[in-house]
Amino acid sequence: MTLSDDGEFGFLDKVRGWIGPPTAGTGIGDDAAVTRLREGTSLVSTTDALVEGNHFRLDWSSPADVGHKAVAVNVSDLAAMGAEPRWLLLALCAPGSTSSELLRELYEGFASACSEYGAELVGGDTVRADRLVLAVTALGEVEGDPLRRSGAKVGDVLAVTGPLGRAGTGVNLLLSQDAKDVSPEDAIACMDAHRRPTARVKEGLVLRRAGVHAAIDVSDGLASDVRRLAEASGVGIEVHTIPIAEEVRRITDARGWDAERIVLGGGEDFELLVAAPAEQIKSLDLIAVGRVVEDGLWLVRDGKREPLPSEGWDHFRP
Amino acid sequence: MTLSDDGEFGFLDKVRGWIGPPTAGTGIGDDAAVTRLREGTSLVSTTDALVEGNHFRLDWSSPADVGHKAVAVNVSDLAAMGAEPRWLLLALCAPGSTSSELLRELYEGFASACSEYGAELVGGDTVRADRLVLAVTALGEVEGDPLRRSGAKVGDVLAVTGPLGRAGTGVNLLLSQDAKDVSPEDAIACMDAHRRPTARVKEGLVLRRAGVHAAIDVSDGLASDVRRLAEASGVGIEVHTIPIAEEVRRITDARGWDAERIVLGGGEDFELLVAAPAEQIKSLDLIAVGRVVEDGLWLVRDGKREPLPSEGWDHFRP
Repeated sequence: MTLSDDGEFGFLDKVRGWIGPPTAGTGIGDDAAVTRLREGTSLVSTTDALVEGNHFRLDWSSPADVGHKAVAVNVSDLAAMGAEPRWLLLALCAPGSTSSELLRELYEGFASACSEYGAELVGGDTVRADRLVLAVTALGEVEGDPLRRSGAKVGDVLAVTGPLGRAGTGVNLLLSQDAKDVSPEDAIACMDAHRRPTARVKEGLVLRRAGVHAAIDVSDGLASDVRRLAEASGVGIEVHTIPIAEEVRRITDARGWDAERIVLGGGEDFELLVAAPAEQIKSLDLIAVGRVVEDGLWLVRDGKREPLPSEGWDHFRP
Repeated sequence: MTLSDDGEFGFLDKVRGWIGPPTAGTGIGDDAAVTRLREGTSLVSTTDALVEGNHFRLDWSSPADVGHKAVAVNVSDLAAMGAEPRWLLLALCAPGSTSSELLRELYEGFASACSEYGAELVGGDTVRADRLVLAVTALGEVEGDPLRRSGAKVGDVLAVTGPLGRAGTGVNLLLSQDAKDVSPEDAIACMDAHRRPTARVKEGLVLRRAGVHAAIDVSDGLASDVRRLAEASGVGIEVHTIPIAEEVRRITDARGWDAERIVLGGGEDFELLVAAPAEQIKSLDLIAVGRVVEDGLWLVRDGKREPLPSEGWDHFRP
């Protein structure tokens, strides 16, 4: 069975089964979803599209991985605001020849990731296209002031919620089609970081409640996201430590790959990058990677400043 | 200049200029948008994707038309719930070779349509793809009970907020590449109905406040949307009048086209289809098209029932 066999009516009936019964409102199928925010909260909304061949490949990721990732990538933006995920919408573009089996796995992965984050798929659209595109919107709630990119202050320490580079290394391993010379555990940890990233929702809540000055999720490589945070805050940043995950260190050593370049330029780690006073960074058990300065974007090596390589992931640059 | 020339950072700077200063929150550019609902309202959310070559063609529509239509199509789903549009998100998939000029026109058309409906573009995403896809999410507010598809009752009159068929006739004219034998005014009215549809926001508000039983927007042809309303309400529907717009009548007469077929199967008129008691339909100045019955989907001609043709637009059927 394919999408074309089912048609839109048949497909929607199947989706209802795949995602399970609704807990918010009356479920999918009306012109729009109706939900209620809790008293005193603000609405936080974000959208991110995943394009086949660009953000995922079906020879690397299972359909369930793709559904899962589409959720995590969007929820990560809510996490970076210190918000709680509540509702998701999925506009799926797909060829008519797409099999029901693939779509079942994709929607089940999507719904399972939603429930992992305490959220729910409440609406969507399905249209014909040459290749798969998952355009997702995530809606969340935030109490009080959300975490912004724009609050970093000169003198703040810059830190991350975890070490980086796994997802980028995973993509490199998948591209090389060979993981014989590396430990299977390391290889899987990195490939899974690409296939099924984790959004740092709990960390975002803790950071917002602690009142850190600024945060952003590391989605496009440390260099790009450092730049975004600096520009939004009108400050400079000095990076003195590149926080490389252990698996990444071992794999890049074995392969002769440049681990720093992977962390600076390879995206999709989805750790949070935070600016806050030094004592707060320590008490929150974050990994310090640099500090906020007056201006410029710098990498400090052996006490010497050099310009931070600007090789972060840009969707429209080669 | 193209998207690839600008890169993501340059492109976002341009978008800020194209869409004008924000009135809600701090504008685009953080991980997510933060907005507040009015006290006592519920959130209404919907997503619809427009794919180049499927929902629009750039030889038929200007980039501004495309931006405008992407808003109207989504806002129409809010209108069908009796909701007020507030915030929109746009995930744009585009080739790197897309010109800045095309994108400027598209975003200006998008922003202008938003402001026409009292809404605002608050967030988005931009990713590389083979062809243009605009995946839009529209967020609105509804006071009290939203208009559902599911409330139609046996004995209700079925009605529409306006005559149908312009958009479908417009597509047929554009496909035929020849409008010599029809009046220019009629041709333009129909082609514009396809290029720049209007969402019936005010009508939706009036209908919700009046307490009509059920509503849906006619986006996929009268036959499909009658079926959706009937299925959601667990009732049958008898269509006794096919409400053909005057321009459509004149053009189809001149061309020998089947006007009924265009209305039943051609989508994107975006009038609202309503079920309500007869006296309410009259006082609201709606066009009666049928009635709600126990079961079945019927077309009544000369007093005789025949099955309603099921040729409404289905995105995955040929």
